[in-house]
Amino acid sequence: MIQKTKGVQSIAFSESPYIMSSATVVGKKESEGPLGKYFDMTDSENLFGEETWEAAEGTMQKEACTLALGKAKLTPDKVRYLFGGDLLRQGIATSMGLESFQIPLFGLFGACSTSGEALALASMCVAAGYGEHMLAVTSSHFGTAEKEFRFPLSYANQRPLSAQWTVTGSGAFVVGNKKSHVRITGITVGKIVDYGLKDSQNMGACMAPAAADTIAVNLSDFERQSDEYSRIVTGDLGYVGQSILFDLMRKKGLDIMKNHMDCGMTIFDQQTQDTHAGGSGCGCAATTLAAYILPKIEKGEWKKVLFVPTGALMSTVSFNEGESVPGIAHGIVLEHC
Amino acid sequence: MIQKTKGVQSIAFSESPYIMSSATVVGKKESEGPLGKYFDMTDSENLFGEETWEAAEGTMQKEACTLALGKAKLTPDKVRYLFGGDLLRQGIATSMGLESFQIPLFGLFGACSTSGEALALASMCVAAGYGEHMLAVTSSHFGTAEKEFRFPLSYANQRPLSAQWTVTGSGAFVVGNKKSHVRITGITVGKIVDYGLKDSQNMGACMAPAAADTIAVNLSDFERQSDEYSRIVTGDLGYVGQSILFDLMRKKGLDIMKNHMDCGMTIFDQQTQDTHAGGSGCGCAATTLAAYILPKIEKGEWKKVLFVPTGALMSTVSFNEGESVPGIAHGIVLEHC
Repeated sequence: MIQKTKGVQSIAFSESPYIMSSATVVGKKESEGPLGKYFDMTDSENLFGEETWEAAEGTMQKEACTLALGKAKLTPDKVRYLFGGDLLRQGIATSMGLESFQIPLFGLFGACSTSGEALALASMCVAAGYGEHMLAVTSSHFGTAEKEFRFPLSYANQRPLSAQWTVTGSGAFVVGNKKSHVRITGITVGKIVDYGLKDSQNMGACMAPAAADTIAVNLSDFERQSDEYSRIVTGDLGYVGQSILFDLMRKKGLDIMKNHMDCGMTIFDQQTQDTHAGGSGCGCAATTLAAYILPKIEKGEWKKVLFVPTGALMSTVSFNEGESVPGIAHGIVLEHC
Repeated sequence: MIQKTKGVQSIAFSESPYIMSSATVVGKKESEGPLGKYFDMTDSENLFGEETWEAAEGTMQKEACTLALGKAKLTPDKVRYLFGGDLLRQGIATSMGLESFQIPLFGLFGACSTSGEALALASMCVAAGYGEHMLAVTSSHFGTAEKEFRFPLSYANQRPLSAQWTVTGSGAFVVGNKKSHVRITGITVGKIVDYGLKDSQNMGACMAPAAADTIAVNLSDFERQSDEYSRIVTGDLGYVGQSILFDLMRKKGLDIMKNHMDCGMTIFDQQTQDTHAGGSGCGCAATTLAAYILPKIEKGEWKKVLFVPTGALMSTVSFNEGESVPGIAHGIVLEHC
C-alpha cells in the first residue's frame, strides 16, 4: 500500500485515500469576507447557541463534523478514528465539542498546522487499511484566541500591523476509500524549525522558515518542480510571512511566486476588513481548504495542489519566559481525479 | 499487516511492532520513591541545567529521547516520525525540547493518556510499514503543572486528600521492527467519556469512567477474559480513582481487582512521600511503564499486560467556566516474546 519517497519526511501513497467530503462553520466576519458565500454555516453572534467562546468553538467543531458526515452520508459509528485539535490550552474546544460522536479520538496539537497534521494521520490510517473512514477536524475562534494569547476582547487593545486576525472557523474532512474527485496522494511531515524569532505579534515571520523547509523537502522528496503544482498553498503566513517565504525559497534556488497562495491572505479583504497582516488560526487553513480550494480541485480547475498549513509553537508562558517561537508546517499533496 | 478486531476501536497487529528501547528521566522526589533505582537519570534540583520549569521539562524530553535512541543504537536520522506531547498549554515542553533532533513531528494532546496515544500511533506506523523506527515521548513536571493548573509553588497552597501529585518525569520509547522481548500486539483507541464531574482536584474520579470503558472495550474487542492479562495497568487514577474503577467494572460484570495496578499508586510511597491520592501527569504512566513494567515483560515475569494511561480533558479556562472534566484512556496490549 505504501511507497517510500526519496527522503524520510514524505510518504507517497500508492493507493491514495480520498477526501470524501468536507464542511465549514465560520463566524460573522468570515461570512462577510471574500469567501463568505462558500461556507456552509455561520452565526451572526459567533456563539452558535453557547454562552462562552470556548463552548462556541467546541460547537463549531461538532457542527462541522456533523455536516461533513452528512455530505458523505455516514453516521458517526462508521468512522473508525477521529483526529482533532485546536489552539486552546489543553485542546478544550475539541474535548468539549466532539464527545457526543463517541468516535475513538486522537487529540492533536500542531498550532495552526493542525489541519495538515490531522489530514496526514487520517490519510495514513486509510492507506494502511486501518479503517474505511476517518474524520479530521480543527478550529479556531477569535474570541478564545485573543483571551488565550493576547488580551480579553473588552480591553480593545491596539494591534501592530504585523499582527494577524484569528479566524473564527472550523473545517472538517471525511477521508476514506470511497471515490471522490480529490485524492491525498502524498504527505510531507514537518520538523520544528527555529530561527530564534521572539515576536508573537509577528507569527508570519516565525512560521515562514518552517513553510520554506517543508515545501523544499516536498519538492525534493517527490522529485518535482514547483510549477508542477497548480498552487502551493500556505496556511496563514499573511503578507509579512509571504514575503519572507519568497526570500527563503529564492535562497534555496526555488521560485514559487507565480503559484503561491496563502489562506490568511485569501479569507479576509485586508483593505476593508482591517485584518492587518491577514487571517490566522487552525480554522483559517481548514475552512479555506474545504470551502475554496477543494472545489477547485474537484472541478479539475487545479490539478495538483500542495497544501502547507503552518503553526507557530508558543504559549503565553514560553513568550513571557523569553523563549523563541519555532514553526512547524505539514505538507499535504492533493490531486484531482 | 493488519487484522481487524470484533469492535471498531481496537486494532490487532498481525505483524506486531517491538518496543526496541525505552528510557526515563525523573525528578528528585521520584528518584527517592519506590521505583527510584529503576530510572535512568535524575537531577536533584529538577531543573536539568535550565532556568525555568518549562525549559527543564523540554530538556527532560530531550534527554529521555537521547537515552532511548542510544539504547537502541540509533541516531535521530534513523527515526522516521516522532510522536510527542505534554500537559502544558500549546505543548511547549515538546516544542522546546525536541527541535534539535530534526525528526518530523506529530504533536499530540491526550492529557495524561498521551503516552498511550503516542505508542498507539507509533506502533500503527511501524505495523503499516511507514518506517522502521518511530519515537514516542511524553513528560510532565510538578513545577510546570502546578503553575499551569493550580497555583504557583511559592503560594504553598493546601491540597485536598483527593488531589494527586504531578510526576516530574519523561519517558521515551523507540518502537520498531527489530526484535526485542516486548511486542505491541494490539491497541484500543479511547473515546471521550464524560460523567459530568467537575472537581479538578479529584482527577481520579473524572478519569475512572474512561479507564473502565477502554478496558471493557479491549476485553470485548479481543474476546479476552480479564485474567488473561498478567496486569491491567492504569496511568494515574490514584487511590480514589481505583476504587471507582473497581465499582464501574463490577457493574459491567468484570472483576479486575486481582490483577489491577495503577502507576500513580506505584511511583510514590503514599505513607512517607505525602502524595495524597497518588502520582499523576503524562510522565507518571510513561516512566513507570519504561522503568518498571517493561523490564518485567522483557523477563517474561509478566506475559501479557494491558497498559491504559488515562487523561482528564480540562483546562483552567474550562474549569472556571463550570465545564465538566471528561476523561479519555488509550489501551496498549504488550506481550512478552
